[in-house]
Amino acid sequence: MPEFRQNMVSKEWVIIATERAKRPVDLVQQKERKNPLPPYKEDCPFCHGNESMTPPSLFSIEKNGVWSLRVVPNKFAALQSHLTTERKHEGRFLKADGFGIAEVVIETPLHNQTIATMDLEEVKNTVVAYRERYTALSKIGQLDLITIFRNYGQKAGTSLEHPHSQIIATPIVPPHVRNPLYQSQLACDTFGDCIYCGMMEEERRQQVRVVKETKYFLVICPFASRSPFETRIYPKTHRSSFVTISDEELADFAFVLQETLKRLYVGLNDPDYNYILRSAPIEDSDVKYHHWYVVIVPKLTTPAGFEIGTGIYINTTLPEQCAEFLRGIQIQ
Amino acid sequence: MPEFRQNMVSKEWVIIATERAKRPVDLVQQKERKNPLPPYKEDCPFCHGNESMTPPSLFSIEKNGVWSLRVVPNKFAALQSHLTTERKHEGRFLKADGFGIAEVVIETPLHNQTIATMDLEEVKNTVVAYRERYTALSKIGQLDLITIFRNYGQKAGTSLEHPHSQIIATPIVPPHVRNPLYQSQLACDTFGDCIYCGMMEEERRQQVRVVKETKYFLVICPFASRSPFETRIYPKTHRSSFVTISDEELADFAFVLQETLKRLYVGLNDPDYNYILRSAPIEDSDVKYHHWYVVIVPKLTTPAGFEIGTGIYINTTLPEQCAEFLRGIQIQ
Repeated sequence: MPEFRQNMVSKEWVIIATERAKRPVDLVQQKERKNPLPPYKEDCPFCHGNESMTPPSLFSIEKNGVWSLRVVPNKFAALQSHLTTERKHEGRFLKADGFGIAEVVIETPLHNQTIATMDLEEVKNTVVAYRERYTALSKIGQLDLITIFRNYGQKAGTSLEHPHSQIIATPIVPPHVRNPLYQSQLACDTFGDCIYCGMMEEERRQQVRVVKETKYFLVICPFASRSPFETRIYPKTHRSSFVTISDEELADFAFVLQETLKRLYVGLNDPDYNYILRSAPIEDSDVKYHHWYVVIVPKLTTPAGFEIGTGIYINTTLPEQCAEFLRGIQIQ
Repeated sequence: MPEFRQNMVSKEWVIIATERAKRPVDLVQQKERKNPLPPYKEDCPFCHGNESMTPPSLFSIEKNGVWSLRVVPNKFAALQSHLTTERKHEGRFLKADGFGIAEVVIETPLHNQTIATMDLEEVKNTVVAYRERYTALSKIGQLDLITIFRNYGQKAGTSLEHPHSQIIATPIVPPHVRNPLYQSQLACDTFGDCIYCGMMEEERRQQVRVVKETKYFLVICPFASRSPFETRIYPKTHRSSFVTISDEELADFAFVLQETLKRLYVGLNDPDYNYILRSAPIEDSDVKYHHWYVVIVPKLTTPAGFEIGTGIYINTTLPEQCAEFLRGIQIQ
């Protein structure tokens, strides 16, 4: 029997369509293994030796005199840093200059890696860079929201093979972000505590959707997953913003991020995915009603007219089965 | 210079990234023309002669003793009609049985057509069927929202080639639909009239994004288009629900829907697309603050992590150029 399930925070609904349910194994990517990528490509702006093809580094980590990670301004940025936030009218329509900051985190000099296959040290470098740049961008006036994300593979909207993440800071908190904040605020006003913390408590009690728990993090396939193998990583301690993460938590975060992506990589045969780190708006970096997390969305299905029209996603896979499948994956 | 533009109704923002702007012609689909489809396929449940492969018709239109259009229950429905709307708790989570109604509009007996290539009479049949079923479903208690949509092509999430639309009626109005309603309600409380009517007035004044105007309809590429060639069809007379469309308006709607899809078909070389008819919730079928419309979303780009995370879409094509391009398409 199909069922509606509600996202406890956003109040959006999904349909878990068990009648046409797919087993997790049906979603293993059948793609041919590509020719293994080379460690270096002459025309790749992110490869070691090609540094002149990008703007200078904003931050880097070195080892034995060569860089292991670089953060550079996005050369093809959708937003620019020299503009204003002034709103302008075009008749009855509202617009503003495209002020904002867009950066690229080049996670490793090697062209043929991804987070699931890197050394753990490189993953640590990556999340250290996230924190460094998040902190630096937080201090720039006029920015309101910092979004860190990773597009992996063509179905996830990237054309660049070289391992990288992106950071975009905007002077706007859009309704898409604000609406769930209103909901979590209302819940906090009603019950007196963070609804995300309550959700985690419930997930730990029920256990069926838990993929992994470490000292500082909980990994789950959410109750109201919008698509197969949606997976989320939550800090167990209440923190509204990523900016406050401690060194010890950061090391655990690197471990759990890599381990989760390895489970997907091994279990589903290297699926394309997006992940997004959702942190509170800069102004709300120490509030009771928000809780930062990472959502990983493997691109295994295509949203269609019903999803676009209603925001109600039809998910043909049980989150409980996805979590069980991921728990069972052997990752050496 | 890139710019933010705000959707006047939903208050969501897009980024029009002119620095990496694509010209409309860059988006013409480079796909090879497939082998022309046959008019009949033995294993297609929607083809003439294969009626036993679907449940019996809920509505049909005949000509010379054979059907030209059929509406049938969706055999692989994500929702079922014999369930209840009762909310249930699973610990702290909320769910409900998957009650709802899902139907398929088989638009023609011929396998190898699409709206852009059909006889206008078949397009008329299709929108007549939309109104018939919309009206019938409106009268069933416990349903709150009726969504009519068409998924065309693999990138739009369909695997069935045979020309068809879908109708899904749900017992829930989700936040994704409710939030813009709050905004248009607030605008109506503030200014005393329909914000959509005001937006159309502005578009007609500026003219630059108008693709076509007929007696009853206005076709535009919206100011804050989320993706290239997003195109919307609005009734010029204020109506919150599709259910109230008159016969004369319906004939004009069929014409303008087909003509718009022809412009995309010819201009962009048969792109995949979703279209969605957004009508008010059933209870609000005669309100001042909503206005029904059709949004057509050609699948020319892939939303990535930033779009998923923030709801701010980066659009690399100017809506003004898209409208100009579409106006210039010769459609015999």
